[in-house]
Parts: sequence; C-alpha cells; structure tokens
Amino acid sequence: MSEPIPTAPPSGFRDHLPDACALRARSIETVSRVYRSFGFQQIATSAVEDLAVLLGKGGGENEKLIFKIMKRGEKLDAARAAGEELADLGLRFDLTLPLARFYSKHGSTLPHPLKAFHIGPVWRAERAQKGRYREFYQCDADVIGSDDVGAEIDVITAILAAFDALLGAPDVQVVLNDRSYVYEALHHAGVPDHLRAPACVIIDKLDKVERGKLMEELQQAVGSEPRANLEKTLLAGAPNRQTPFGAAQFAKLDRIIEAVGPSRARIDPSLMRGFDYYTGPVFEFRHPKFSGSIGGGGRYDHLTEKFGTRTVPACGGSIGFERLLLILEGARAETERGADVCMLIFSEETRGKALEAARFLRARGISVDVYPGAGKLKSQFKYADQKKAAWAALIGPDEAASNVVKVKNLKTGQELLAPIEEVVNLFASPAAADQAV
Amino acid sequence: MSEPIPTAPPSGFRDHLPDACALRARSIETVSRVYRSFGFQQIATSAVEDLAVLLGKGGGENEKLIFKIMKRGEKLDAARAAGEELADLGLRFDLTLPLARFYSKHGSTLPHPLKAFHIGPVWRAERAQKGRYREFYQCDADVIGSDDVGAEIDVITAILAAFDALLGAPDVQVVLNDRSYVYEALHHAGVPDHLRAPACVIIDKLDKVERGKLMEELQQAVGSEPRANLEKTLLAGAPNRQTPFGAAQFAKLDRIIEAVGPSRARIDPSLMRGFDYYTGPVFEFRHPKFSGSIGGGGRYDHLTEKFGTRTVPACGGSIGFERLLLILEGARAETERGADVCMLIFSEETRGKALEAARFLRARGISVDVYPGAGKLKSQFKYADQKKAAWAALIGPDEAASNVVKVKNLKTGQELLAPIEEVVNLFASPAAADQAV
Repeated sequence: MSEPIPTAPPSGFRDHLPDACALRARSIETVSRVYRSFGFQQIATSAVEDLAVLLGKGGGENEKLIFKIMKRGEKLDAARAAGEELADLGLRFDLTLPLARFYSKHGSTLPHPLKAFHIGPVWRAERAQKGRYREFYQCDADVIGSDDVGAEIDVITAILAAFDALLGAPDVQVVLNDRSYVYEALHHAGVPDHLRAPACVIIDKLDKVERGKLMEELQQAVGSEPRANLEKTLLAGAPNRQTPFGAAQFAKLDRIIEAVGPSRARIDPSLMRGFDYYTGPVFEFRHPKFSGSIGGGGRYDHLTEKFGTRTVPACGGSIGFERLLLILEGARAETERGADVCMLIFSEETRGKALEAARFLRARGISVDVYPGAGKLKSQFKYADQKKAAWAALIGPDEAASNVVKVKNLKTGQELLAPIEEVVNLFASPAAADQAV
Repeated sequence: MSEPIPTAPPSGFRDHLPDACALRARSIETVSRVYRSFGFQQIATSAVEDLAVLLGKGGGENEKLIFKIMKRGEKLDAARAAGEELADLGLRFDLTLPLARFYSKHGSTLPHPLKAFHIGPVWRAERAQKGRYREFYQCDADVIGSDDVGAEIDVITAILAAFDALLGAPDVQVVLNDRSYVYEALHHAGVPDHLRAPACVIIDKLDKVERGKLMEELQQAVGSEPRANLEKTLLAGAPNRQTPFGAAQFAKLDRIIEAVGPSRARIDPSLMRGFDYYTGPVFEFRHPKFSGSIGGGGRYDHLTEKFGTRTVPACGGSIGFERLLLILEGARAETERGADVCMLIFSEETRGKALEAARFLRARGISVDVYPGAGKLKSQFKYADQKKAAWAALIGPDEAASNVVKVKNLKTGQELLAPIEEVVNLFASPAAADQAV
C-alpha cells in the first residue's frame, strides 16, 4: 500500500518544460497560420474513438497500437459476467481515420472539396524507445472530394510552406511515388498477388538495411527473376520510363514536381509509406539532418467506405511534429525571453502601488511579470533573472512618496529613478514581434 | 459482425467544425498570450497518467471519473491470469493533479516561485448530458512556491485579463471565500468534524436548490442549533465580521478585492468550490449570462505531498473553456472569413500560371485558397463562395496570353482584368489583424 506515487509521466510519455512548451505552441500556431492562409480549414475530432472505428474490419496490425479504454459501471460488470470484450473505446492512433469518420458524418454540410487541417496528439501503444514516444503530435492537411492532382499539389505545397515558415529555409525535400505504380511493377515483375504485401514490407526497408542483405531477403521472398525485374523498376533509384506501364503515374508525379519546383522534388520508385490505405501518389518529406522522414502522406480513395459512405477521393499529408521540433530545438540555442518588466514587491504596504504600475504598463502593451509574493528583495531579483525579464521595477516607500519607480536593466545593470509615465518608453520592446516564429 | 461502424464520435465526445474550431484555436492563443504577458510560463503534461497518480490514496470519488486504460500484451495476460487490476493507466481528469506531479519532478530546475500555465483537454467519465462533455478543455494558471496572497492576486488578475481580452468587456466577476474560514465557521457552529464534509456538500448547493429546502436538509444533517448558527456566518450572504473568528481570512480576501477592484470582486461566505484539496482562499468567476461559474480555483497547499515532496504552498485557477466558448459563439453571429483570394483553375494547361500567381500573392502576405482540382468553373465559384473568400481570381488561356489575371470581388460582383502586380493591392487586406480575437 505504501508504494511511492511516481513523479515521472508513464513510460513513453513526456512532460514539456516551459522553453520546449513555448516552442511547441509557437510552432503549432505557425503551422496553423500557414495551412489557414492556403485555404485549409481547421477541424478537430475527439481523442477518444469507438473501438469499432479504430479497429475497422478484423483489427489486424492496428489493434496492437491501440490504447484501449475499459467499459465503466454496469456495462463493465455485464461484460465481465458475459466474458465479453472489456473495452469499448480507444485513443486515436492517427488523424486520418478520425478525419474519414468526421467527413462521413459532416461532409455534406461543408465546402466541397473540403480542405481540412487537423492538429493534435495521437497515441500508439508501441514499445517506448529513444525518440519514439507513445504520445505525439501530428499536423495534417487533407483534401477530400477531389481526384485531381491539384489536391496533391495543394497538400504538398501547403506542408512545404509550413516547413519553410518554421525552418526559415527551404531545406525540406519531397520524395514521390505512386502506390498503383508499385502494384503494377510488382505484377509485371512476376510477383504473385499474395506476395505483394510482404514484398512491399521488404522494399520499404531499403533506406534502413544494407542493400545486399535486402536483395537476398527479397529474392527469398519472391524468387530470383522477379527480384531481377524489380531492380529495373522499383529498385532502380530513379523512375524507369522505358517500361510498358507507369506512364500515367509518372505523368502525374511530374505535374507535382513541376508545381513544387524540380529543385525540391524527385521520384523514388521504391517509396512505400507503410499504411495500406494508400491508393495513388504517396510522398515523403525529408530534411538533410534526418535519415528518415519528417512527414509524409498520400492518396487514400477508399477510406470513407468503411463508414458506409460512397467512395470519396481523398489525399492528405502529415508533418512529423516531434522530429521537426528536434530540428528547431537544435537550431535555437537561446531560450525564451521573459516579460518586459518584472515588478518586484517591496512590502505589503507598497503592493498597491506596484500593482497599479503593472496595470499602467499592461494597458500600454508591456508584459509585466509581478513577483507573486513579498519576500526578500534578493530572492525577487533572482526570480527576475531566472525568468529572463528584461527589466526589474521596484516601488519602495521612498519611491512611493515621490511618485517614481526604480527600474534596473537586468542585462546592462543600468538603473533609473523616474515617474512611470517616463520609464514606459524604455520598455516598449519587440515582445510582440517575438511571438511569431 | 456487420454492425455499421459509427460516424458520430462516442457519446459525450464531440467533433468541432471549422468555424467552431477557428474560434477555439484563436481563444486558446489569446488566453496563452495574456497568461504569458503576466509572466506565466507554459507547461504541458501527458494526457495519460499512471492510475496510481490519478487515484491517489484510496481512490474515492475520483475513481468513477477516470477513463481507465487497459494493460497491454503480456502484462494484460498476467493480470487476467492473476485476477488483478486490468488497467494501469488513465486519462487525466483535471490539470491540477498532473501539475502537482510535474512540479514534484521538475520544480527544482525551474524559477521559484513557479508561475505556470497549462492548457489542454481533460476527460471525465461522467454521464453525458446537455452542455456536459466527457472531453473538455481547461486553461489553468498556477503559482507554486508562494504562500503569500500575492499569488492569489496574480492568478486572479491574469485570469480576469484573459476573460476581458476574449470578451472585449470586463463582464466577469470574482466571488471569494476561504476554505479555512468555512471549517472554522462549521466548528464554531457546533458541527462535529465527521459531519463537516456532508455539510459542505449541502451548502455548496445553495445556488442550485430552493433555500427553504436546503435549510431543511442542512438541519437534518447537522441539527437545528448548528444550522441557526450557520445562518449567521456561512449562509449570511455577506461576511459576518462580528464573529470571534475569520478576521485573518477576511483581511486576506479584502486584499484580493483591493487589488482586483471592488467593482469586480466580493466575498460570498457560502462559496465551496468542490475539490477537497483546497486549503485557503477559493474563488469563482461568474458571467451575467450564466447562473453557474465560468471558472474558479483556490489554494491547495498540500497537493504535492502525495508525491513525497515537502509541503509546497500553491494556488491556481482555471477557465471553464467550454462555457466561455458558449458565450463567445453567441456573441459572434458572423462566421469565419475565408482567404483573401480563391484562385480558380481554368484548365490543366493554365494551372502552372495560376500556381505561379498564387506564389506571387503569398510572397506578399496575401492568403490564397487554390481550388484543389480542375472541374467546372461553376463548381469552382460555388466553392469560393462556400469558403467565404473575398475575391476569386482566374487565369484562362486569353488571360495567360496577355499576362493578366481576371479577378472578381465576391461581395460586390466587381470584375477587373489586370496584371497580377496591379491587382495585388486590391487584396492587401486586414486578414492578419483578423487573426487576433
């Protein structure tokens, strides 16, 4: 009974300290602003979904990813008694499936095509390991209701613009492929349908496993002739335009490259993008600082069908927010700056004056961090330093008597004694500008 | 097996459509901006906590509120076999308990006192009913490490400033009381200790139940003399300063009233604020449009003790975000405006020109919603209307040949044919200013 209550979050989960948190919040605001300026409209779905939504037909691979929520009260008792499933809800593991549900419910009342963005945490019950979390954010942009390549172009350009706004440089590249091209290539290479999925899984590992080993594995899975054929298509590194198939897909991908700019996009015929719901073009975002991807997506024309909705063409992409933050955190060594002024409290008697001065400054757009107490001035100055305030301000009995405030620049040490109306100009700082990333 | 997969979120959970979602996002940004400008630093904790953290000692009332998450894999099998608890995690039901855990873990590395804010969803497994959701946001501001009334003043003024920024008017009032005064009043009234909790529960219903009925209920619980005594203190409507107790508490509350302004704050000696972790001043925010509260908080000096941390004085308050949104939604009949320009796509051949024009405009801060397809122009104009874009722009083959763009003001119908460099000034709109609430 006396086991200590843990102070750490559960394994695979994280707390975010103030500096990290400010960066996260600012980054989400930036992504939202860019998506919105491209005409994407924000939607939100609940963190919790019915298990039936998350599992779909048969469950399969996804089932292991799901944090399941137990039934409650009488329902739980009944399920226990009957030996039935004890969970009825679960945490979403991506934002695409909830979006498909959302669209099936609300789509008819919304603009058509729907350009939606969706930002929030998702949860996966994977083994916790370095850089892999069980709770992480995704920032998705999707176009639902358009089968035109304009949808892909729109999604990809919006996501690239968001990356550029955050990183301050066009460092992110797009790698493209087409899932239907992959299937045709496998078929023409002589890979039987039942080996399609395992072959895809093997090829998907191309950038993680030594090539020789991978070829061996592939040969064992599909045979030597199909393997040799695939080396001329999926494994050729660049699109092979000499084959009797793939022309339509490459033409479409070429249009995306043209729109995005050839310096930022290329085709990699081995690109898979895991999820089995993809039906057409797939894409991945890469950054020179990461070997893996920092985002990706694709076309998923059949996902709404599971909700009984007629087939609705759709495509979308996602920013891998946690990886992006690793880059952003590395890029800015400096920490957040604090308020313009830290207002110290000399004593209980002068608190009223100090709060009045704080109100005066705030009304003029100055951010004021009032010391939340009335202890020793030494501790209060230490607090102002810890909070990285630009200035400290103090009204003691002498200052109060002569209607002035004492201010100190915490970087230069400069001190000044003047009426509040005069010092206010010292504080008129670029704090507002700092809010934008 | 063929039960249809639901398209609605689970009972008590919600989807948020674009207009509502934009308002939510903007409101959260405003609250964050205000809290930050008062020197509060944002922190974040995981949605999921160890059950031991959520349950504390003995569980009790909170246990029913918790959405419990099942163990996974071998752990689940082992728990089943041993007939042990099948859940190991749960969703947080407030932000205060996770903050106490967070502080116990990270407090020593952070500024002292810590002024923290914490915004996010919480989950409660309550029966779903109108206006009561199982997933809702809280926006908390807390001061940890100060036993001075300056902490309460800081929290309350920051929350009031956030309300004012959102509502555009100082409509929110603060009602104050002190939990230790309540306990003293009960003691002096002759209510034995073991009846303290039930008496509090009854008095807490004062603004929900007819007074006569409540008095009867109270009399049955504590007896007629104690009830009569309480009518002179807790139930007197205003503080009774003639009693031999309460002077210290009222003096403290008076200081808060002085700082907040007497026109915005008053003492109500019957105010309880449910949670049993409160130890000192408690407060509640009220809006003329609501009979209940739209936020509240108090001092909780012992909450970190459960994590084995020495006693740390703390107080904090929370904005009832969902109620606040009801007021904000009622206040703004108009919906979100769309992009400055909706760029239509005349044909596949002119898409390149259209995208180029979009890039040109975006580089100049104009928001451009490119139609994500290439269908009939009629559908595209309908889309531009649905999206509430200010202008539509089109480049057909004729326009492309003469290097102009055709633009149409979707409100006035005004049309214009001109080079993109000339029309750009038409669009230089107050979109950026609109972003702020």
